[in-house]
Amino acid sequence: MKKKLQAYLQELFHLQSVIRLAEWDQLTYMPAKGADARGKQLSLLERLYHQRLIAPELDEYLEEMAQDQTLSEIDQSMYRVLKRERDRAIRLPESFVTAFSEHKAYSYQQWLKAKEANDFSIVAPAMKDTLSYTKEYLQYFSRTEHIADPLIDEGDEGMTVSRVRKLFQELKDQLVPFVREITNRPQLEDAFLHLHYPREKQLEIISKILPDLGYDSQRMSQDFAAHPFMTKIAHDDVRITTRVNEYDLVDGLFSSIHELGHGLYELNFSPTFEGTPLHEGASFGVHESQSRLLENLVGRSLPFWERYYPALQEQFPSQLGNVSLKQFYQAINRVKPSLIRTEADEVTYNLHVMIRFELEMALLENDLTVDELPTAWNEAYQRNLGVYVSSDREGVMQDIHWYCDFLGGMFHGYTLGNLLSAQFYQAAVKSSPQILNQIQEGNFQPLIHWLTEHVHRHAHQFTPDQIVERATGTPIQVQPFLDYLQGKYVSLYAIN
Amino acid sequence: MKKKLQAYLQELFHLQSVIRLAEWDQLTYMPAKGADARGKQLSLLERLYHQRLIAPELDEYLEEMAQDQTLSEIDQSMYRVLKRERDRAIRLPESFVTAFSEHKAYSYQQWLKAKEANDFSIVAPAMKDTLSYTKEYLQYFSRTEHIADPLIDEGDEGMTVSRVRKLFQELKDQLVPFVREITNRPQLEDAFLHLHYPREKQLEIISKILPDLGYDSQRMSQDFAAHPFMTKIAHDDVRITTRVNEYDLVDGLFSSIHELGHGLYELNFSPTFEGTPLHEGASFGVHESQSRLLENLVGRSLPFWERYYPALQEQFPSQLGNVSLKQFYQAINRVKPSLIRTEADEVTYNLHVMIRFELEMALLENDLTVDELPTAWNEAYQRNLGVYVSSDREGVMQDIHWYCDFLGGMFHGYTLGNLLSAQFYQAAVKSSPQILNQIQEGNFQPLIHWLTEHVHRHAHQFTPDQIVERATGTPIQVQPFLDYLQGKYVSLYAIN
Repeated sequence: MKKKLQAYLQELFHLQSVIRLAEWDQLTYMPAKGADARGKQLSLLERLYHQRLIAPELDEYLEEMAQDQTLSEIDQSMYRVLKRERDRAIRLPESFVTAFSEHKAYSYQQWLKAKEANDFSIVAPAMKDTLSYTKEYLQYFSRTEHIADPLIDEGDEGMTVSRVRKLFQELKDQLVPFVREITNRPQLEDAFLHLHYPREKQLEIISKILPDLGYDSQRMSQDFAAHPFMTKIAHDDVRITTRVNEYDLVDGLFSSIHELGHGLYELNFSPTFEGTPLHEGASFGVHESQSRLLENLVGRSLPFWERYYPALQEQFPSQLGNVSLKQFYQAINRVKPSLIRTEADEVTYNLHVMIRFELEMALLENDLTVDELPTAWNEAYQRNLGVYVSSDREGVMQDIHWYCDFLGGMFHGYTLGNLLSAQFYQAAVKSSPQILNQIQEGNFQPLIHWLTEHVHRHAHQFTPDQIVERATGTPIQVQPFLDYLQGKYVSLYAIN
Repeated sequence: MKKKLQAYLQELFHLQSVIRLAEWDQLTYMPAKGADARGKQLSLLERLYHQRLIAPELDEYLEEMAQDQTLSEIDQSMYRVLKRERDRAIRLPESFVTAFSEHKAYSYQQWLKAKEANDFSIVAPAMKDTLSYTKEYLQYFSRTEHIADPLIDEGDEGMTVSRVRKLFQELKDQLVPFVREITNRPQLEDAFLHLHYPREKQLEIISKILPDLGYDSQRMSQDFAAHPFMTKIAHDDVRITTRVNEYDLVDGLFSSIHELGHGLYELNFSPTFEGTPLHEGASFGVHESQSRLLENLVGRSLPFWERYYPALQEQFPSQLGNVSLKQFYQAINRVKPSLIRTEADEVTYNLHVMIRFELEMALLENDLTVDELPTAWNEAYQRNLGVYVSSDREGVMQDIHWYCDFLGGMFHGYTLGNLLSAQFYQAAVKSSPQILNQIQEGNFQPLIHWLTEHVHRHAHQFTPDQIVERATGTPIQVQPFLDYLQGKYVSLYAIN
């Protein structure tokens, strides 16, 4: 890569770092009233970033690369990713970007009011505008098979509505009857997870487990946020966050492990990519696969707790003294169809996602209006999860996402992540079967080594499809995830 | 002020906010290995700031203001401050700024090594370069009475070497014999301050006292740093930091109160100045006066502890149960000539500053070489404080300041701050004598109200000299500070 382009990209990278730092701070330590000024600081930084991304200067560099027959494989990837990001930025008029940015802030405020009042009609007008903005956004792209394809492709390169639908249908066909089988069985007990677990004692356990899993305090920090997230400031500066609920033993622990999964992915990127657009996750789905793999396939597994349960029991003798390992393992894997996606178990979670995805598509296909959305939501929850939504606060308004960004383009990624978590894990265990025993010994290095070799280090060098094929030998599939659920829950719920 | 200039200044202000946020994070939460990338991020942001500050566009705005006969008083101040900052920026060649910035990072590393090895000769070459850079820097300014005047004026507008020397001489003439009188008296006991005081319990007391003093959790945060500091991200986003030493009851508490003093000053700036160059402290000395006033004149006073000592005793019954209020008050005001400036009591503190200032001046006047510096340091400590410096680690290399910035321009500000803290406090109590009783009741509002009216709200609208004159009726003086020390320590040490 040419020195001048390199310097140019470094600047883009550093600007992005600072944007992420400001966002991280906003969600962790910033005093509440700092919000207005932070909005203005971020808007300035984003403008500076955008200006550099669409500058004619960058076009010249890209043109040079396009003509160069001697580009290395990595430089070819760089060209692909950079051109993609730039082309997207250039399509959008600055007036649109500014207007939508202001709309998002307004819509968020309306959502807060509507949720508080449990009255969807308060936020409905803003959401109608969000739908219009989403449609306008999509019109800036060339015609695709489905109107929402550019939105899907943005976070998950190469993915389309039709591919998502095919995967989701296959998953749903087996998942819905499986959930029914489970809910027909006697329920598992988890009341003891909701005794009082003092904050400091929870944090001690978290700080014992995380380093075993690869948490590197020289290159990471863990801080607190209402809604845990991960962000990367630089190759050697990755931030994860968690929260602690004194009446939920596992919320803080699993959210820590989840975010660490995201963090390890970024931590293990090839350092040579730092300062270039390749130093990103391959896609939203691949990123989520790494967090879900660590949280669920490792963190909610029996071998994992064979290792750590004695320490947990010792930390909380009065709460867990009489709870066996088996009872604990059952409790943390209890399946119960519920209203709130973020609290869902790993079996029913994807049904939440599929409901959202189909509602988003119906809105974009003009098959559904915003006014009809709450009823459609409630019916879908009744039909797919068998739960009754008694208030929109716990239904269509339950989380921020539809009220702070485009409608569509995100939720499906959570399920792609779940599918890939099982597919990667299956491939890892197949190539090194001793991984399971090693987990039992608290030795996660072989697993993380496999993930680093096959997924992490490549960062965004390959497309998500290439990553998956190279690592597992097949395209993204539904079966490994279903096999994983079957293998685990048939025994947990003693299904015949 | 013209709309376009306003928007331009807002951008500068927001860039500065982000620079400060990145610096704050560097000293609080950033993982250690994030340092390299942070250096690059900061250097980019500083370059963007500098470019905007020296842009010809700003010249046009300034020219317009200069011609405008109808400028408001505030806009005239804005013109003064902005022009001053811009003129300084323009004088310096970018090559000099870059080279010195790199040198500082190098010099800091050399200081770490030299201090570790207790060998000044390791850092001496870097320090010689620092001296050269300082002299080169000063040459970019027009000829002044003393070569170091532009360095003094930078942080303390209107101050000169000759004014500092005059104040310092007057102070020293009375201080040195006063210290001798004190050290001839029996020493006060403070061993009980160094029992074990658990961190969490210290933090509880701090979090009880700070809100009474004006800490506003909606607009401030308090975090941890090895060397406590205050920084302002925005008008409604002021950060203070502290540290806790489990074997020093008062280090964390007084450093918290000190930084809160800085923080309140910024918090009480007129909000109309936000986004302009007026939204800064009037000078380093005035800023320091606010922190020292709160820390020493309030926080180490008897009325203050009449209010808070019972709570402190209750928090630490085994450590303080048998310690009377009087004993506690004596202990926190114990005077003992020592080696380390940052640990000095309020009587001897200024002697540390004067030694540094005269050494800095001697270096700049070519009366002293870097190689002679350690010996000169040790002799001055012996002569002025009567203490023997047995190692350069506790002498000339004791803190970072000479190894990360120009030589000179800073230390004198600490003493100006001490002088002004007493002068402002005297004026406040004179105008509202009930302030003392109110402190005893834990009511700091009247004092803070006076400070806000006479100092805080004006921010940088007036010069430091104007602020002092307007608030106290006289220029900066030595006598109020000496009177304060006399009044307090004659009784503490039962001096006849």
